[in-house]
Amino acid sequence: MKEIRMPNEEYAYFYSGYENPVAEVDVKEEVAVYTLDAFNGLVKTPKDTVSTLACQLFNPLTGPIVIKGAEKGDTLKVTIKSIENTSGVAVGACMNTIGGINATTVTRMINDPITEKVWIYDYKDGEFTSRENPKLKFREQPFSGSLGTAPENEVISSTVPSTFGGNMDVKDMCPGNTLYFPVNVDGAYFYIGDAHGRQGDGELNGTGLEMAAKFILEFDLIKGKKIEWPRIENDEYIMTVGSARPLEDAARIAWCELVEWIVEEYGWDKLDAYELLSKCGEMYLGNMVDPNYSMVAMVKKEYL
Amino acid sequence: MKEIRMPNEEYAYFYSGYENPVAEVDVKEEVAVYTLDAFNGLVKTPKDTVSTLACQLFNPLTGPIVIKGAEKGDTLKVTIKSIENTSGVAVGACMNTIGGINATTVTRMINDPITEKVWIYDYKDGEFTSRENPKLKFREQPFSGSLGTAPENEVISSTVPSTFGGNMDVKDMCPGNTLYFPVNVDGAYFYIGDAHGRQGDGELNGTGLEMAAKFILEFDLIKGKKIEWPRIENDEYIMTVGSARPLEDAARIAWCELVEWIVEEYGWDKLDAYELLSKCGEMYLGNMVDPNYSMVAMVKKEYL
Amino acid sequence: MKEIRMPNEEYAYFYSGYENPVAEVDVKEEVAVYTLDAFNGLVKTPKDTVSTLACQLFNPLTGPIVIKGAEKGDTLKVTIKSIENTSGVAVGACMNTIGGINATTVTRMINDPITEKVWIYDYKDGEFTSRENPKLKFREQPFSGSLGTAPENEVISSTVPSTFGGNMDVKDMCPGNTLYFPVNVDGAYFYIGDAHGRQGDGELNGTGLEMAAKFILEFDLIKGKKIEWPRIENDEYIMTVGSARPLEDAARIAWCELVEWIVEEYGWDKLDAYELLSKCGEMYLGNMVDPNYSMVAMVKKEYL
Amino acid sequence: MKEIRMPNEEYAYFYSGYENPVAEVDVKEEVAVYTLDAFNGLVKTPKDTVSTLACQLFNPLTGPIVIKGAEKGDTLKVTIKSIENTSGVAVGACMNTIGGINATTVTRMINDPITEKVWIYDYKDGEFTSRENPKLKFREQPFSGSLGTAPENEVISSTVPSTFGGNMDVKDMCPGNTLYFPVNVDGAYFYIGDAHGRQGDGELNGTGLEMAAKFILEFDLIKGKKIEWPRIENDEYIMTVGSARPLEDAARIAWCELVEWIVEEYGWDKLDAYELLSKCGEMYLGNMVDPNYSMVAMVKKEYL
Repeated sequence: MKEIRMPNEEYAYFYSGYENPVAEVDVKEEVAVYTLDAFNGLVKTPKDTVSTLACQLFNPLTGPIVIKGAEKGDTLKVTIKSIENTSGVAVGACMNTIGGINATTVTRMINDPITEKVWIYDYKDGEFTSRENPKLKFREQPFSGSLGTAPENEVISSTVPSTFGGNMDVKDMCPGNTLYFPVNVDGAYFYIGDAHGRQGDGELNGTGLEMAAKFILEFDLIKGKKIEWPRIENDEYIMTVGSARPLEDAARIAWCELVEWIVEEYGWDKLDAYELLSKCGEMYLGNMVDPNYSMVAMVKKEYL
Repeated sequence: MKEIRMPNEEYAYFYSGYENPVAEVDVKEEVAVYTLDAFNGLVKTPKDTVSTLACQLFNPLTGPIVIKGAEKGDTLKVTIKSIENTSGVAVGACMNTIGGINATTVTRMINDPITEKVWIYDYKDGEFTSRENPKLKFREQPFSGSLGTAPENEVISSTVPSTFGGNMDVKDMCPGNTLYFPVNVDGAYFYIGDAHGRQGDGELNGTGLEMAAKFILEFDLIKGKKIEWPRIENDEYIMTVGSARPLEDAARIAWCELVEWIVEEYGWDKLDAYELLSKCGEMYLGNMVDPNYSMVAMVKKEYL
Repeated sequence: MKEIRMPNEEYAYFYSGYENPVAEVDVKEEVAVYTLDAFNGLVKTPKDTVSTLACQLFNPLTGPIVIKGAEKGDTLKVTIKSIENTSGVAVGACMNTIGGINATTVTRMINDPITEKVWIYDYKDGEFTSRENPKLKFREQPFSGSLGTAPENEVISSTVPSTFGGNMDVKDMCPGNTLYFPVNVDGAYFYIGDAHGRQGDGELNGTGLEMAAKFILEFDLIKGKKIEWPRIENDEYIMTVGSARPLEDAARIAWCELVEWIVEEYGWDKLDAYELLSKCGEMYLGNMVDPNYSMVAMVKKEYL
Repeated sequence: MKEIRMPNEEYAYFYSGYENPVAEVDVKEEVAVYTLDAFNGLVKTPKDTVSTLACQLFNPLTGPIVIKGAEKGDTLKVTIKSIENTSGVAVGACMNTIGGINATTVTRMINDPITEKVWIYDYKDGEFTSRENPKLKFREQPFSGSLGTAPENEVISSTVPSTFGGNMDVKDMCPGNTLYFPVNVDGAYFYIGDAHGRQGDGELNGTGLEMAAKFILEFDLIKGKKIEWPRIENDEYIMTVGSARPLEDAARIAWCELVEWIVEEYGWDKLDAYELLSKCGEMYLGNMVDPNYSMVAMVKKEYL
């Protein structure tokens, strides 16, 4: 199996169609992709609070990976076969710059900042246990917090979620689901990173169980089919992800994308689809900490 | 069993501590409470779009019900034993005044308004089926959209969710869960209505399966315990509901209330509780259509 | 001139169509209305921080004043002839419960709360000077923070701004302007209070120069003309006030109301009115601290 | 005077520290900078609605201009000496993708989209007059909608306002004011474009009077002084610009930046500064149409 690593440990911090590919892969070819944790592997003890770290960029990505045959206007299908913790540890933290229920650089307040804190977790037998407080103990439910394709023109930080995917921090970007992303440039230029051993809805303090990982991935293409925002599918559900602020705009995007999916592929009337979601749609919070917030809209296939 | 109905079918449309009680009940006494649907029973055919209805007030409530022994500063515990559809039908609708993905009276737009539409559902064997489009067919999962206690001073519309409960449109206000509300006036002055045969997260077009219902309820009190916002509990979860706009403020309220619950009753450190929720907290959308939006934060008890 | 005071100093704290009128006035009759400051006159020294006050209700109102001949569906025209400070002092404060740039009960944060503080101002020769810091010195520019008509059905706190006016905290609710409010109940049931000697845009810490006042008012009616939200007019401008959260919804309401005003009364095409406001509309922040935020949209009459 | 034009009319569409400079200028050297209108000069008749244009990128910029001696951590001072309309025309438009009071790609709605429309303005003697509706007639009040320095790491679209300036669409970015931007990369890499002959607060339909222009600019540096967000100063006011969504977060940033300016440079206590702004601060809407909304906070120097 092809192994994809960043040469000289020089990671990417942007979704960009202008960088040199680190690998080219065929559709339906399984590849192993190695990623670093969101803090560049620098948080090793509880003293390594985020503001003390000697780095300015976070969420290192592995990529761009060129998907052979991908052309602008196609849809990229990504299957995550597995996610494996590669370092035996994971990290959680609270910070002053981001966070769902603390003052941040965007939701600015004159209140005193909160105290920064770090938790180091040992990983063993599928379970993460905090060294500082063993009640913080979680079974793994891994996914990628930041993954997607290059935008058409811009060069966007790996911390931003948007139309092309990016830092959505959505737990359904996980093994077992089929993930869809728009192809905005020939080759797709796929990036992945920010593995989370597990995360609560919202990524409330700005961190999941941040870890280095090995992903087994497989790609496929839906030629000539254009989507506007990331989508997710499994046997039970179809799901859409919207990313914006305020949270209701993220929700509106996800719901409207889901209405369109139902109208276009299942042949429903638009208002009937609206009624359907009002009765059995589901929506959970992806993240409320990143530059855009993410909401996930979903509906069971049995209703369609 | 005591049966509580509104005399002369004159329903309440406000949460108020100033009205004459329709009943007084003891703690641990089971009572049957009869409620009307949110459209005052006036929507009977697809032609009865909401703007044509001869009424100005919606969400009729049954109440106030005085809970004997309740004093300001207590917590009211409500158990819904059962919810029964009493008319054999239910109603769904889309409107121009409210809705999660259409222009409304609050999110005002100069776009042309959407077309109003009504769906009438027959209820049989626990299932609702639309007469207009039989693909709109849903198994029941009933709850109360609007319930709670009188606020201390204000008189608040039955369409508004807030600290005292109200029109939260949260699906976990259902049989099987224990619901907690602050007691703001002596006697609690409990109201209930707006039964939904089922509802999707967000109550997207502004309606669940709106139906008349019979509730079997039981009340209890936690004397001298003051809570700020509604709470929900079952064997698996503790949950909090926050209601505000924008949606992130509703989320912040629910998360902060959950942090406080964990700190006060489970003895956790505040930042550790923040970390806990970042790793395993859950949050779903209650409603994004009412005067305040509602979000539900929850965590499994096994983590506490 | 008729003098209107609350009997026994028992003020109103709600906009309500259900209370007994304190006065009835004719159109075009000048009346003097006496009001208390927002803190019920209880803040007298810097030690009287808001959380220490022995009161639960704020923003006392004088009213309801019945306007003879007013019928539901009319528009009430209010002219403030003058506002006079009646106590020689005014008060400013910062609090933990509300505020534009501190964590509040709605924008909840786990940060430590800010320190409460009070400023007492002496009023002399049209100028307010803080006893604590004489650099805090302001020339008067008085207006009413909370005024309006009873809503049709609800009983709404004097701290809430909405369609009927209320606690908009908009500096253009001042002498020299003509103010318009919807008449929702026969008699209009007008209330006024919360005089501000001056206020910055947004009422940032939750207070203007809070003072007791004597208002000279004159009322008039536009029979059979229905407006949805408060409006303001003077020789130079027409203005609309929208109140909602988030702030962009308050803005959308104000802009859409202004578009409709231009279309209906000045005969413009809707899209041309949209273009007009894009080129010369003005918008300032009324308040960003109350239960709804308020934005003021305005356009110079010379463009119409 | 040095004239700065884009070679071969190949404009920049991103704020980037990675592009080759088009010019290097000394501090206190006056330069003339030529810019294209936001629609790349392609809108020439009312039929040229935005969705018909043969371009994907908008807001062409002239730059990067290297300021000699500028180092990361300095503050760049920009004076706009004059702005001259160079084509005799200007353009306004309403669109389906952006706009303050129509459904957009972010505030997604299922309502039908609005009708696109274009207005062409002739410019003569300092006045713009619409060919389609001569009541749309405006005296010029020119400024730059999009200007600023390269961000440190990212490459950001010219349509986005942020910490480095960018597409703020703030009318005070005009002749007569001193503008301050953070220097994030050595040389500052300044860009400018998107000249507006005039614009209403909010840039409501997404356009000002979009025009090609000649700017006379002068730069200066404040060595070793770091600012976080753009600032503006003139004889009467100090002002700060915050850009974010929702609008209240843009407001919070601007107010907090203004508090810090008053604390750091005028020696005020933080809570006294809070009180000061509550009494005499001013805030107007910059834009409510761009990827981030912008708010301007300001206070008269006489109070400081």
